[in-house]
Amino acid sequence: MPDGVIGGEIIVAFVNPPAKLHTVATINPPRFIDNGTLSMSQKPHLTFDLDEPGVNKGYLVVPTGTDREALPLPVLSLNKGEGPRLLITAGIHGDEFEGPIVALRLIDWLIEAQTCGRVLIAPMLNPTALEAWSRRSPVDRLDLNRVFPGRPNGSISERTASAVSELLLPTVDMVFDLHSFGPKFDCPPAATTHPIGDADLMRKTLNMAAAFKFPVTLAWDGPTQGMFDTLVQSQGKVFVCAELGSGTVSADALAVAEAGVRNAIIELGLVEGKTEYPTPRQMKTNLTLESLTSDQLTSPARGIFEPRCSVLDELSEGDLVGLLHPLDPWSSKAIEIRASTTSIVCSLRTGMQVDVNDGLVYLARPLNL
Amino acid sequence: MPDGVIGGEIIVAFVNPPAKLHTVATINPPRFIDNGTLSMSQKPHLTFDLDEPGVNKGYLVVPTGTDREALPLPVLSLNKGEGPRLLITAGIHGDEFEGPIVALRLIDWLIEAQTCGRVLIAPMLNPTALEAWSRRSPVDRLDLNRVFPGRPNGSISERTASAVSELLLPTVDMVFDLHSFGPKFDCPPAATTHPIGDADLMRKTLNMAAAFKFPVTLAWDGPTQGMFDTLVQSQGKVFVCAELGSGTVSADALAVAEAGVRNAIIELGLVEGKTEYPTPRQMKTNLTLESLTSDQLTSPARGIFEPRCSVLDELSEGDLVGLLHPLDPWSSKAIEIRASTTSIVCSLRTGMQVDVNDGLVYLARPLNL
Repeated sequence: MPDGVIGGEIIVAFVNPPAKLHTVATINPPRFIDNGTLSMSQKPHLTFDLDEPGVNKGYLVVPTGTDREALPLPVLSLNKGEGPRLLITAGIHGDEFEGPIVALRLIDWLIEAQTCGRVLIAPMLNPTALEAWSRRSPVDRLDLNRVFPGRPNGSISERTASAVSELLLPTVDMVFDLHSFGPKFDCPPAATTHPIGDADLMRKTLNMAAAFKFPVTLAWDGPTQGMFDTLVQSQGKVFVCAELGSGTVSADALAVAEAGVRNAIIELGLVEGKTEYPTPRQMKTNLTLESLTSDQLTSPARGIFEPRCSVLDELSEGDLVGLLHPLDPWSSKAIEIRASTTSIVCSLRTGMQVDVNDGLVYLARPLNL
Repeated sequence: MPDGVIGGEIIVAFVNPPAKLHTVATINPPRFIDNGTLSMSQKPHLTFDLDEPGVNKGYLVVPTGTDREALPLPVLSLNKGEGPRLLITAGIHGDEFEGPIVALRLIDWLIEAQTCGRVLIAPMLNPTALEAWSRRSPVDRLDLNRVFPGRPNGSISERTASAVSELLLPTVDMVFDLHSFGPKFDCPPAATTHPIGDADLMRKTLNMAAAFKFPVTLAWDGPTQGMFDTLVQSQGKVFVCAELGSGTVSADALAVAEAGVRNAIIELGLVEGKTEYPTPRQMKTNLTLESLTSDQLTSPARGIFEPRCSVLDELSEGDLVGLLHPLDPWSSKAIEIRASTTSIVCSLRTGMQVDVNDGLVYLARPLNL
């Protein structure tokens, strides 16, 4: 990039590996003692009545804590009476902008097209993180999607999770949470879920995910404690995590992402219309995959990762995924990262500096339903 | 992105607008008084003899200063005797990994294929910045490509620039400096130059740039003080800045980038071969463009930028480039960013949070040679 002409300096600090991160998060952030009762101003509240018919805009107010003042989160209510009740959330992670932009783009369409039921849209659930282009809020360094159901007297992320859990979630039957892989990965748009113990809810969830008609519908395994997903599913409700893409947030990527969410809304019956497979360039595919914890290949050392395959490539065991160059390229040979099993490349780290244990690639395979 | 599963937390701080950055850079970094003479250990040096024939690997050692110890920069010399003398540099900016990876990929090919002349490859000129995934070195916060020709007793970036200027540049006739637009922009691979006062050198430079056969050959206007480009051109030598892409660093993007640099090396006669237009997906074009300072549209306010066009789109005056959403989407309407003139979209900000005066888009138009 040319110097001085385009603004916006990024200062980046890595806190790795993830295990460490988690330790930091549980030891360092400010903690607040619940005092048993909360005054009105300390309670989360909505600035408007969700039961009002029609279109209503307002805020979910996260109350003041010792770490920062009250935080108003924009919420839009589209109440067309009886029917499915859907909550669309976005911006939980501050380096994933596809969700907030797509959530905003849905509004005019829904105002025009919604025929029944209720849709709540909360397009920016983590504004302090979004302002910092950072996954976590710089205020408490916690991952908002690790602290659900939150704590009413906790830090800003915990208070936010608590406000959403108490005031938005009870009013809906289903949640679409809009994420992306952020700027450090390459991946196709995917509607995803973690495996769910309740087989009936798992089936319903996968069916709903498939309704996005994204190139990939994915069930992936991994730790789920403190996730919004887990809370919603524990209440027997369908939760689809839409991973809307990665890398640069382009007009093309946004159009595909928006089309996918519209498909799911149409499938729910909230809008009458015809669903179509959105066709991202070079991704005319529709796969249902599963990815296990063992499918995640992590970096064996510090170095510069060079991807040598592409997302959606089919690999055999031993095929080259990428190279890990030593930081001093004359000190030793590059380490070859190879596929552990016959698989499909589901997401791939961008070519950049990585630390030991950083994720490099998610492999996946067809899920037999 | 899923939580806790893939490591690598990014903490990002914005220092905007660019004008401010420059103020910070000139006031805050440590400054060192030149003491007139330098002892041997304080002098930059090469660990090997560039005049040795054949393939030689070693280091350009940037001497110890008060801000950090000596920094060895890897350098490879491919000396096949008489012929063009080319320096390939990469990794001047630490959030642009296409260059370092492509520079490493060229080595095996050149060892096999080079028939004459000399090639010097310095794949990682700014290792402390590359380790931090940050444009600037975190040690002195200076932009290495703003401090040429450097100062032998300055901060780490200034000492690096000085070492390159003194020990590498005098041994070559031409420089290819490998950059990219980094993770915050979308742009096609482009071989670029700033306008040069010397018409003959400008013609030679544009011809060399065109030899990459990238989708775009670009002459762009802008401040050039302290740039490596300016120093090299002031010595009457050809300097091509290859902007190898943007966003995620994928295998496809790397293949195109490498093919372009190989084309230019073949055109120089260092390697015998046939050049071909690399064909990035959806970018089967070969344009020679110019972009003026007035073609750079910057953000009129803080907000979330939503791109509404794509790179290489042709725009008429007034066409929509993107929307700037207020941070509170209920507070006011989105600001429409529109093309100032009939133009071609050369590079475009990714959808993300931007500050006032941040660059949003570079427009360009055909350059009449």
